[in-house]
Amino acid sequence: MAELVGNVLVGQSGGPTSVINASIAGVIAEALNHECIEEIYGTLNGVLGILQEDLIDLASESQQQIRALKHTPGAALGTCRFKLKKQADFDRVLEVFKAHNIRYFFYLGGNDSQDTADKISKLAQAQGWEMRVIGVPKTIDNDLPITDHTPGYASTIKYLAATVREMACDNEAMGQGDLVSILEVMGRSAGWLAAGTALAKRRDHPHDSPHLILLPEIPFNQEKVLEEIRRVLKREKYCQIVVAEGLVDADGNYVAADAATDAFGHATLGGAGDALGEIIGANIPGVKIRVAKPGLAQRCAAHAASKIDVDEAYLAGQAAVKAAIAGETDKMVTIVRGETDHYTSETGLAPLADVANSVKKLPREWINEDGVSMNFQFLRYAQPLIQGEIAVPHDNGVPVFARLDKVRVDKSLPAYVT
Amino acid sequence: MAELVGNVLVGQSGGPTSVINASIAGVIAEALNHECIEEIYGTLNGVLGILQEDLIDLASESQQQIRALKHTPGAALGTCRFKLKKQADFDRVLEVFKAHNIRYFFYLGGNDSQDTADKISKLAQAQGWEMRVIGVPKTIDNDLPITDHTPGYASTIKYLAATVREMACDNEAMGQGDLVSILEVMGRSAGWLAAGTALAKRRDHPHDSPHLILLPEIPFNQEKVLEEIRRVLKREKYCQIVVAEGLVDADGNYVAADAATDAFGHATLGGAGDALGEIIGANIPGVKIRVAKPGLAQRCAAHAASKIDVDEAYLAGQAAVKAAIAGETDKMVTIVRGETDHYTSETGLAPLADVANSVKKLPREWINEDGVSMNFQFLRYAQPLIQGEIAVPHDNGVPVFARLDKVRVDKSLPAYVT
Repeated sequence: MAELVGNVLVGQSGGPTSVINASIAGVIAEALNHECIEEIYGTLNGVLGILQEDLIDLASESQQQIRALKHTPGAALGTCRFKLKKQADFDRVLEVFKAHNIRYFFYLGGNDSQDTADKISKLAQAQGWEMRVIGVPKTIDNDLPITDHTPGYASTIKYLAATVREMACDNEAMGQGDLVSILEVMGRSAGWLAAGTALAKRRDHPHDSPHLILLPEIPFNQEKVLEEIRRVLKREKYCQIVVAEGLVDADGNYVAADAATDAFGHATLGGAGDALGEIIGANIPGVKIRVAKPGLAQRCAAHAASKIDVDEAYLAGQAAVKAAIAGETDKMVTIVRGETDHYTSETGLAPLADVANSVKKLPREWINEDGVSMNFQFLRYAQPLIQGEIAVPHDNGVPVFARLDKVRVDKSLPAYVT
Repeated sequence: MAELVGNVLVGQSGGPTSVINASIAGVIAEALNHECIEEIYGTLNGVLGILQEDLIDLASESQQQIRALKHTPGAALGTCRFKLKKQADFDRVLEVFKAHNIRYFFYLGGNDSQDTADKISKLAQAQGWEMRVIGVPKTIDNDLPITDHTPGYASTIKYLAATVREMACDNEAMGQGDLVSILEVMGRSAGWLAAGTALAKRRDHPHDSPHLILLPEIPFNQEKVLEEIRRVLKREKYCQIVVAEGLVDADGNYVAADAATDAFGHATLGGAGDALGEIIGANIPGVKIRVAKPGLAQRCAAHAASKIDVDEAYLAGQAAVKAAIAGETDKMVTIVRGETDHYTSETGLAPLADVANSVKKLPREWINEDGVSMNFQFLRYAQPLIQGEIAVPHDNGVPVFARLDKVRVDKSLPAYVT
């Protein structure tokens, strides 16, 4: 394996998570170990920063800030939802890579981001630019194939499960068999996040909150759900419902009032909780309805992150660099679960092409017959991922997060023209 | 001071908080110290439990569970929003007190609850039933007079400030000068909670998030707010707005779409965030709008509680018992701030009549001229209250809360007739 000498470029894309910066920290920390890596650059706002030659010098950041990235939510390099389409844009990316001698490219993101990394990798090969491209998985949606799970997912469900359990205390105190409490969570097309709130139930307490989990996988059956709510209200002081934003009816239409689409053609949703509340209010007289919608807060709740998740995100960043140094390219790091009962994980690799634009569905056989709760197979899968808490440093009572200096790398190319 | 021998009854009323159970724990722990106290009873769901003679034996709960109450959100005895009105109901309360030899009554709640306690106390005096009644302040709304602040407030603003700071990381990563992120917080008539999110700003960084705080105290001036948003979007990558649910326009009408009223005639609100988002979307073309509404989650986020708040709530419960033993009655415990620069507090007492149904407003002079940010006077007031974090015990990755056995006290009266 010939040593490839040159610079690293790392970038983030798609929605931020609580732990994507931990992967960045892992990339930087590992890159420092290898002499063949000369400079460690970051691109601001993913491919947008590459196109605009907006690169920063990550090696000049303090060790304290790099360490602080491990518990900092958001995406410290900025992110984007820009989709590379035009050939001119792809050519520009390569031009920037060549201008800055980028020989190692690490791209953190979900399906679309891995697709972008794959295309860039193939273009570099076609143009004879020797470069190693490794993707690092990231998405709270947990919908990437091959990898056992995606860094970011566990921290969001840990936060949501804690929220459900806390709200259960509140709701139980307030309810007199007449309170319906709705928590709307993210999940456009898959119910991974909504399903994760099942972890709020104590083991062997199937009647614990959440009482109903409404998944995008199970078409909303109004009569059945109303009947189930009535049954819970008779049994409990309140009924707590978790609903995924992407809940659809039998015809496949979103239950949420309004639906628009983003740059990738995905629907941007909101309002499933309110819509559900209106349906319940209209059909169960005298019931009090409260809707909570943590919105973006659920994907950046670093103060409630999972230690396993943070550690795996960091390891995934390190593994990407190690793989590239070992000569791998056009791959994404995966998380591979050990086969023992006691949870262990290690990293693996999968071809980017196998990951890109493919979606991992929540297995139908992990959902109970009733369609509104999860069975032991899901719990066995998800439970280990939320273990361990993070002590985020606080200053004056509020969490303190990394702030990068973002020292710009000198531009050497003409300005990007859209 | 003649020793008054008899039983304790403690109850909770109004909306739960993250720390009201810490006050219950304080009452129980202190009551155990006094031999003149024979039994320690709790009423389930406040005055409702008294009317229905639904009392539980708190002394029979395990020490572990009482200790766990210190970090358990909700209201472990249940709560209610029932308002005592009929003379027959007041008489029934006294009848229950006499039947169970209640000589010490501790009632935890906000304005309405303190009013209820005051009325019960006066009725007992009128009927010659010797009993000491002490209120314990509780409300996330922080709107009780005389007391420097109310237990429950600090934990909610600590959680909201952490959420704002975390969302700022997320929003900054996503924004390109085109993202408006709205966080709707509770606050029907006073902006204490919304104001508290100002603590997310770093000292001497006035441009930090939240960029605008829309308080119920400042009528919504659409043109001025839109102008301010445009200014922020030019300067920052995103504009983060905190809006109180009780935001009103110049005519005093709620900006939120729908308004109903609860049993006390208070408006129950929701939707100020969505309403604001629609206004912004209609007036600033091309802007992306994201609305988050933690709803009930903000008043039960025990995992992010303030240590100062938990400690003061516990002390307030203890102080109530000590005061009653010392012969005080018809008073509410207050939190009294020390006069030194370094924050200290002790408990005091105020006549229930002075507290009941009076409201402490957010001082106008603590709001900046711009009407959308808080000045140093507010920060000096609020900053000390959110100090210190609580290590809530976790099991399997989720916080573990107290669960009381709730052993019922035998009923000795005929059933309550509404």
